[in-house]
This record gives sequence, structure tokens and C-alpha cells, in this order.
Amino acid sequence: MNKPTFQSDFQTPKVTTGPLPSSRKVYVESEAHPGVAAPVRYIDLHPTSGEPPLPVYDPSGPYTEEGFVPDVEAGLSRERQAWVRERGNVEAYEGREVKPEDNGNAAGKYLAREFPVRNAPLRATGKGPITQLEYARAGIVTKEMAYVAIRENLGRQEALKSAQATLKDGQSFGAELPEYVTPEFVRDEVAKGRAVIPMNINHPEAEPMIIGRNFLVKINANIGNSAVASSVEEEVDKMVWATRWGADTVMDLSTGRNIHNTREWIIRNSPVPIGTVPIYQALEKVGGVAEDLTFDIFIDTLIEQAEQGVDYFTIHAGVRLPYIHLTADRVTGIVSRGGSIMAKWCLAHHKESFLYTRFEEICEVMRAYDVTFSLGDGLRPGSTADANDRAQFAELETLGELTQIAWKHGCQVMIEGPGHVAMHKIKANMEKQLEVCGEAPFYTLGPLTTDIAPGYDHITSGIGAAMIGWFGTAMLCYVTPKEHLGLPDRDDVKVGVVTYKLAAHAADLAKGHPAARLRDDALSRARFEFRWEDQFNLALDPETARDFHDQTLPKEAHKTAHFCSMCGPKFCSMKITQDVRDYAGKLGDNEKRALEAMSEEERRRGMQTMSAKYAEVGGRLYVEEEVAEDECVTAGDVATN
Amino acid sequence: MNKPTFQSDFQTPKVTTGPLPSSRKVYVESEAHPGVAAPVRYIDLHPTSGEPPLPVYDPSGPYTEEGFVPDVEAGLSRERQAWVRERGNVEAYEGREVKPEDNGNAAGKYLAREFPVRNAPLRATGKGPITQLEYARAGIVTKEMAYVAIRENLGRQEALKSAQATLKDGQSFGAELPEYVTPEFVRDEVAKGRAVIPMNINHPEAEPMIIGRNFLVKINANIGNSAVASSVEEEVDKMVWATRWGADTVMDLSTGRNIHNTREWIIRNSPVPIGTVPIYQALEKVGGVAEDLTFDIFIDTLIEQAEQGVDYFTIHAGVRLPYIHLTADRVTGIVSRGGSIMAKWCLAHHKESFLYTRFEEICEVMRAYDVTFSLGDGLRPGSTADANDRAQFAELETLGELTQIAWKHGCQVMIEGPGHVAMHKIKANMEKQLEVCGEAPFYTLGPLTTDIAPGYDHITSGIGAAMIGWFGTAMLCYVTPKEHLGLPDRDDVKVGVVTYKLAAHAADLAKGHPAARLRDDALSRARFEFRWEDQFNLALDPETARDFHDQTLPKEAHKTAHFCSMCGPKFCSMKITQDVRDYAGKLGDNEKRALEAMSEEERRRGMQTMSAKYAEVGGRLYVEEEVAEDECVTAGDVATN
Repeated sequence: MNKPTFQSDFQTPKVTTGPLPSSRKVYVESEAHPGVAAPVRYIDLHPTSGEPPLPVYDPSGPYTEEGFVPDVEAGLSRERQAWVRERGNVEAYEGREVKPEDNGNAAGKYLAREFPVRNAPLRATGKGPITQLEYARAGIVTKEMAYVAIRENLGRQEALKSAQATLKDGQSFGAELPEYVTPEFVRDEVAKGRAVIPMNINHPEAEPMIIGRNFLVKINANIGNSAVASSVEEEVDKMVWATRWGADTVMDLSTGRNIHNTREWIIRNSPVPIGTVPIYQALEKVGGVAEDLTFDIFIDTLIEQAEQGVDYFTIHAGVRLPYIHLTADRVTGIVSRGGSIMAKWCLAHHKESFLYTRFEEICEVMRAYDVTFSLGDGLRPGSTADANDRAQFAELETLGELTQIAWKHGCQVMIEGPGHVAMHKIKANMEKQLEVCGEAPFYTLGPLTTDIAPGYDHITSGIGAAMIGWFGTAMLCYVTPKEHLGLPDRDDVKVGVVTYKLAAHAADLAKGHPAARLRDDALSRARFEFRWEDQFNLALDPETARDFHDQTLPKEAHKTAHFCSMCGPKFCSMKITQDVRDYAGKLGDNEKRALEAMSEEERRRGMQTMSAKYAEVGGRLYVEEEVAEDECVTAGDVATN
Repeated sequence: MNKPTFQSDFQTPKVTTGPLPSSRKVYVESEAHPGVAAPVRYIDLHPTSGEPPLPVYDPSGPYTEEGFVPDVEAGLSRERQAWVRERGNVEAYEGREVKPEDNGNAAGKYLAREFPVRNAPLRATGKGPITQLEYARAGIVTKEMAYVAIRENLGRQEALKSAQATLKDGQSFGAELPEYVTPEFVRDEVAKGRAVIPMNINHPEAEPMIIGRNFLVKINANIGNSAVASSVEEEVDKMVWATRWGADTVMDLSTGRNIHNTREWIIRNSPVPIGTVPIYQALEKVGGVAEDLTFDIFIDTLIEQAEQGVDYFTIHAGVRLPYIHLTADRVTGIVSRGGSIMAKWCLAHHKESFLYTRFEEICEVMRAYDVTFSLGDGLRPGSTADANDRAQFAELETLGELTQIAWKHGCQVMIEGPGHVAMHKIKANMEKQLEVCGEAPFYTLGPLTTDIAPGYDHITSGIGAAMIGWFGTAMLCYVTPKEHLGLPDRDDVKVGVVTYKLAAHAADLAKGHPAARLRDDALSRARFEFRWEDQFNLALDPETARDFHDQTLPKEAHKTAHFCSMCGPKFCSMKITQDVRDYAGKLGDNEKRALEAMSEEERRRGMQTMSAKYAEVGGRLYVEEEVAEDECVTAGDVATN
């Protein structure tokens, strides 16, 4: 919180609650793992549709339950802690003291209020598996794995039962989307390092989710206060708001003062995994002077955040001294904050980055809490001009090397990707990542496909995000309309999330996710049948859809009208189509064959006539005057009609 | 105009004028064709940039000239009429009387005011070439061709002169973008039918432009009143507004009453080509009853509109009787208005469509005014479920057949495409179109890559538009946020246009347009150097970019601040990068080589260590307890630090 407020003035963050329109949250129990139940949002359709409710993935946590009253001062319930404890291999301990520098030495009216409840953190005892990766390798299906299997399966069972034998219709570029996701499939993907379940043992409020190429494409929303704006209250509200619209994870990118306290409020109330970039806070602890950073300060920050429950850390360990000069001729140099901090450190000391040289020590901390690595792309391009250059790919190769080391330590890993990349260079990013990073999940920011549309970078990047998601990226980090210009407010967060949800969904469709089409088809049927309410309710953003309809046709009766504002009541293509359908339905097979023959014959005749004419004029491309004149008679006649 | 207003209450449409920020309109004269001068918008950059003004394509007409005062009651100046007349082969004539049914028999307060000026229309005499295609085939470079060559060349000369020997970096999928566009290149592309210059001889107010795969990707904006909303004033304003933000052509899709009068106001004031779907008006003339349509009514409507100056007509001549039943099993049947009208007619009469059977007569009218065909895709998919089906492709094949016939008659042709298509099915559309339509320019609506985001369909379709533009589509028809929900207002038109401009530009970049990168790079440099004003001014939408910046950092001083709101003044990656660059600039070659060697050696060592460890634990994937314990010592130590 960088806005000054006395602790006594601190308001309990207000968050948005209640179900989305026509939606019910249902907890579906695992058949194989009784007691494990994952949320599914069912969208109820109008009785006239004759269609069952449509299940959709729901990352919004209890906030969207009917009647749920959040206690933001206490945080969400910590149900998953029992799962962690019953597996053993963890111990509760006192935990690190919160130090004044954790909040940037903020005091008085500049210090944000502490979260009221303090929980003793857990950590690995050192005995037996602790991370989801280790359990997976040991052949153990954790409850988290069973949980994500339920979530990922939305509608597949129904789809498989239906007459439409397979909905699978896509180009997967090597992804292997199963017909049905079993807990064992989840375990196997995690064991191979192809998917991560980013669940810090100290974030038991979060609902397990999975990030991997063979699962639904996920999206991340960035929030966080900055040195110049926003408050704890706003950031907690944005976090809940982002998940309401579909954010699968949230990154808290706060800078300035009060990073620690802000983060605690966010984590305790978050139903989704929280990611951070710990070097931001480490830099605050050394007064913003990159060259004063030390490994000790960094690792202490990791522990601080791991104890709080951060689920994944962006660590820019691939920004190596030998790569830094490769960025010198770039149009936009190094644009990653973490990357530029480490670059500055390396140059100031003329030493290899401590994140790289002491990476194994970092792994041990990550493992002790099951914090997932998000290996940061500190040398990502900040403009399309710099895309796919040597600096970027040298770093990616190093991330691949570090992936192997992290895996050796039992840590879960994903890899961050660009950035700004014109369309023709996107696929190479995915291919290179798959090649050098052992199929660890790719997690990209956009990419933006052009630099010329500030104010619309959710769109320039939504294009790139949909494409790279199709090619195999497992999670897409959103970009809001404010990118490059300002801090996103609530509306920007919503627009960013919905844009990325649609991009992720477009990717799922194109990859051939077996159940992705169910929602498109349900909405298309609603549209075709003028079930306006169903069309709104099935939309990613029912409020905006309804509001736009109201702007042209505000009356309630128009919601049941069998026409739309484009064509009006008398003249409607969808209505005419229904007539066509009724008619065509009566056609017998013989008649259809006759039509086909007619089609062929006329086309042949048409083409013959044309060839004859063409031959007649000697195959010349330009038709000479006498021919042109002859052909114009008709036009003349008609013109004087 | 379907809102009742007495003629005396009619307000002269108010349109937006004046240059965009920091922009000047310059008319660049053709070297080869003195007297022919085409507009270029120059964006002036801040003196500290040391950079020349950036030229950008400018379809906005005189409205964005400094000090231009439009006389909307008189229309724009009709300069191009001299070009048409001096070529000969045309005659002025009385023209068709406006009939009451042309305005839907509107009377009294329901009749929109007539445009005050009436010009005698021109038509072909029947002697010699008349269309741009015929001139091109005859080896004649028209002034229109010289004009578009200037426009298309933006910045290429400068780019070619610069140190950066070639900016060409893309994947063109067979497009042949020249290093430099000459009038002769334009002529050749038009002669081959690969590009069209949609310029009705009766629309001399419009500035020539070209649509083809080897030119800049263009965008179209749809406007038009409907039976339930809007007025002449609003539509004229929207037309000018759309071109201000970059619309290359505008389609007037008005329905209901007053179609004729609305169109006249639009055309007379339009600097860009205007397209229509004549069957809409024809249907109004028969009281909205599709089966009452006749060829005579249709052709009379074509002449009516051709005399007014419509530059291209969407004609759904590919909706043939034998194809209609192919749509019966679709999720969304026939969603094209024109397509469904013709389908209904065919079924009602059980006859082949008169648009198909009498296509050559239509060609003669088109030729007489040089109206370009936009062969409509009446069977395009209305949902991703229906994409690329037999109905769609059967029609496309017929459009290819009709293209040959139209070309034979000397008519210019483009082909309309879908619609709703998931990403993995987009490329097939382009390939099929190229294959069956003889490389006539493709003109697509989106396509929308998912159906689940009403309210965001400018984005679902912007994704598809960028992709299909990259693959070779010559013009992208915009989709606004109101698509499927309501009629676009002014704000929606702007958002739609800017979204499609960025999609078209992303396509140009990916295709490897030799000059496309200039704007991205200029903006990226401005961003890197914290030239905020330049960043706004170079943006597609400078107003929104500035507004978003103001929301977080409203003070004027912040516009020259060397930081952004994301990171604040102390902590800025771009600032750090500058330090890195200064430092790296001092590195000698030997030092660089040493760094490279260091990089390699360490990586090798790292990989060896890893392999050794892996071998040590017997290549097992799961590291057993004793190993895990040993590795955890560090974590434990650190945790208690």
C-alpha cells in the first residue's frame, strides 16, 4: 500500500460475491478419491432449450457460491492443509520474523495493516517426497491430482456419451489431449515434468489446478500496487475480481513499500495460486540499488514469501553475464524488470549472476515448500524488432539447463516466454521451448504481435496469445488495455481476463480439446434460436453482452424477441434459415441426388461456355473493342430500362 | 433514416475534422504522372528524437487536412471525374428517376431529406475499355493506378536508403510483396485480377485505393441504419469517423426505409470506396417478401446504386439451389442475410437463383460503371461448428467459376469469406480460395475464432483476421464489440476500426511488408526513450493512449518523465537497460569472445555435474529418501537463517 493511510483508517477489502447469472456452483466428487470434490459451474439454460445445464471450468472459489459471505479478515478456509499434513514429511515451525524492511521500512500512516491472523508455516522435514513432482514420480496420486482431474474433465463424459461420437477436431502440434482425464493421467504428466500443480504447502486456501500442454490452457492476471499508486484494499478486490472472470492464477507484482503485508492479505483470500517475482522485493530491501543485492537477501526473501504461501516464483536465473552484451544492439534493450536488475548486478560486479551460480541452493528452498519455478525470461524482447534474437534464445537454452537441475531436486518448473513477437516468429518460440526445456510447461506474456497500438495491447497480445496457446503454451499471462501506459484498474483487469479467456478458449478449440466445443455450440444454438437470455448467460461476460443488447433494444420484451437489432423484426436471416431447414428436411434422397447432378451439370456447362468464349477471343487476356462492344449491348439496354 | 423527422428538422450531418495529433497531411506527387498526388500522413516526432517524421497510410480524405471546412450539403470535390472523362468511353445521361420504393415509400416525416445536389451519372458508351481491369489488360496505367502506387509506398524509399539494407523479414505464403511499388506493378496486379481498385466512375469524390494480396492489408467498416434505429446524420458521421481511424472502405448496410437517400449523403461525402449489398434494398422494394423478388427489380436496384456511385456490390450469386439443403444439419444454418434471402427465393420457386442464371447480365451493369464485384459468401458459417463444411466450400467453388465469367466481362472481382472459424481451420479457407478463385482478392469477415464471447467479438474475430490477413486475405471486414448484440455506435465503430487496423498491420508485419516495421520500430524507440508524446502520437489511437496514461499519471510533467507508472521513478527496467547498453558498448571483441567461452564452459560443466548426479542415483527418476535428505540440508540451513 503506497497510498498513505493510518492503520485505523484501513478498510476491510470489499470483494465481489455471488454467482454469475443463471449459474450454480456444484462440487463434483471424485469417484476414485472420495472426499475430494472440485467445483464446477453449471449454467442453467432456458427450459425451452430442452438442453441440460452446461458445465464450465470455475476458478473463482467460494466467492461465487450462492450466499457465501467472505470474512476477508480471516481469509478463506484452509482445507487443503489436512491433505498436506496427512501425507507427512512436513513440520510446522515458528517461521521467520517479519522485518521492517519486508515492508520497505514503512511506518506510521505509511504502513499497511498486518493481516490479523498468523499461521505457523509448514516446511519439508527432509524425509520422503514433498512436491507434487516427487509424489508423481513415486507413483502416488495426490488428492490435488485427483482434484484437478475432476476440474479438467468438464463435460467430457457427457460429450463422449452423446451421439456426436467425437468432438475432437483440431491440430494439436504434438499435444496429447486425452479423451478423458484420469487422476493417473494427471500423475503421469506431472511426473514427466510436462505439467505443474503450483500449490505451496503454505497456501491451503487455494484450489488445486494444473498447468500443462495436455490440459485446458490457463491464464494469469497480474495485479499489485506500485510505488506511485493503489492500495491493499484495491489489490485484494482485484484479485477476487480477476478470478470471478476466469483468472486461473494471479501474480502479485507489487513494488514500493508494504509488499509483505499486501501479499499476506492477497494470499489468505485467494482461491487461486499466487505467483510473485521475489527479486522485486529483494531490490526494495536494498533501497532500489541493484548492485547492493546479495544472495543472502534474495534467499531470505524467498523463504519469507514461501512461508506466506506464494505458489510460484519468477526467477530470472537465465540472465547470465555472457548474454548481457547481446542485448546492446536491440531497439528496446532489456525490458523485463527482473532481467534488468540482474543485468545491472552482473555488470556492476562483472560476475556471473548469483541466481545462476547458486541455483541449486534456490532449488532446495523451492522444494521445501513445493514452490514451483517459473523460470523468468529476463531477456525477452520488448519490441517486435528484438524478437527471437540471440540474447532471447541463449537465455532460453539456459532455462532448459536449469529445468533439468530443478527437476533433479524434485522441483516443479514452468518456463516464461515473450513478450513482443510478430506472428511469423511465434511458432519458433514454442518449438525452441519444447526442444530445449524438456517439455516443461511454457508460460508466455502475450506475445504482442505489433507495437503500434498502445491502449489496445490486450488485443495485439490476445492475437499472439491465442496462437501460441494453440501451438502448445500452457498458460497465458494477460495483458490489459493499460499495458505500457498505466496501472490497470478493476475494469482493465476484467477486460484483460476476458480477452485472455477467449484467447485460451480459442486455443483449446484449435488444439482439439474434446470438450471445448460444447460451450461454443450451446451458445451458437442459443443464438440461432433467439434465446437471448441463454446467449448472455453462456457468454464469458454475461453482463457486457446484456448491456450491449440493452443499448439498442432496451425493452424486456426484446429479450424474448425472435429478431435482433441488425435486421429488425421483418427481415432476419436466422428466421429465414429456419424456413429453409424445415423445407430441406422434407427432401428425399432422390431429390438430393438430382440436385447434386444439376449442380455438376450446370457447372460443367458454365465452364465449357467460358472456355469456348475464351478460345474464341484467342486466349487473349484483353478483350478487344469489337468484343467489348458486343458484350455491352446488354448493359446499355438495361441501363435505359 | 428510420427515426421519424420532418424534412425541415433535418440537421446537416456534423462530422469530425482536423488533423490527428502531431500529424500533417502531405500530398505526394507521382514522378511518372505529374498532377497525380496522393495523401500521406506525416507524424512529426519530438526534436529530441533526432528522427524524421514518420509517413503513414491515410484514408481519411480532406477531413483531416489542417483547416478543412466540409460542406456536407455539397459533398466532397469531384476531382476524379476529370480523369474518368479524359479517358473517354463514358457518357453522361439523364439517369434513372428516384422512385418512391427506393426509399421504402417513406413519406412525410418518415422521408429523409434528399441530398441537395444532383449530378448526371456517367456510364460506359460501349466503346473501349472502361474498368480498371480492362485498362490494365490493355497495358494502360491509369491515374488511379499511379495514385495507389504512391499511397502503398509509404516509407519504402526511405527504408531502402537506410543502413538497414532490408526490412523484409516475414513469411508470405506466396504473396509477392515488391521492394518498391511502381505504377506498372499496380497495373500488372490489376491485369492479373490479383488486385482491385474499386472506383465507380460515379464516385469521383473517393480517393483511389487498391485491394490485393501484394499490397497493404486493408480494412472495411460497416455502417448503416436499420429498421429499428439510427438516422442519416448518424451514419454520415460514422462514415467520416471510421475513415478518420483508418477504414479503407465503408459498407453501407442500411435496411428499412430511406435507403436511397441515406446512401446518397454517404457517398457524396465519402473519401473511401463505398460498398453495399443491393439485395437488401431490393427486398425492401418487395415489402420484405423474399419470394416476390425478381431479376428486374434486382437489376434496376443495381443501376440505381451504380448511378449513385457505389464502388462495390456484394452479390450472393453462389447461393445455388443445389447447395441449400447442405446447410440443413448446421448448428446455425444460413446466417448471411443475402444468402438467406436467396435461399428462401430458390426454395419458394424451386428454381436456380437468378443471380446465378443471369450472372452475365449482372456483369454488364457492373462493367458499365466499373462497379467491383464482391462475390458474397451467403453460405458462410455462422458458428465455429459449421466452418469449412461442404455448403461453404461448394459455394466458394461456384464463386471461383463466377470470377472467371466476371473477368471475361472485364469486371473487377473480390471474393468474400467467413465468418466463424476456429484457428486450425483458417488456413484451409485461404488456400481453397486461392486455388479455386484464380487469386482474386479475398475479403473476409473476421473470422471469429470462438463463439463464446459476445461483447468481445471484435477480439475473437481480430485474432482470426490477423491470421487470415497474414495468410493472404487482402481486406478484412471489421467486427465491432456490438456484433450479434446491437447496432454499433460511434465508439464501437472506432474500437472496431482500430482493432482491425492493428490486425491488418500485424498481418503486414508477418507477411514481410518492406515498410511495415518502420512504425513499430519508431514507436518502440519512443517507448524505450520515454518520449511519451511520441509514443502517443505514433499510436493507432493517440487519444486513448494519452487518456490511459493520464488516468494513472495525470500531470503534464509526467509526459516528459523518464519512468512509467508500472515501475515508478526509482525502479525502471528501461532506465537500467540504458546503463547496460552504455557498459556493453565499451566491451572489446576479445572480452566478448571470453564471455562466450565462459558461457560455454559453464554450461558444459553444469550439464556434466548433472549427468554425473543422475548416473549416481542410478538414473532413477524418483530420488529416494537418503538422497532427498542429503539435498535438503541446505534448505534447512537456510530456513533457519
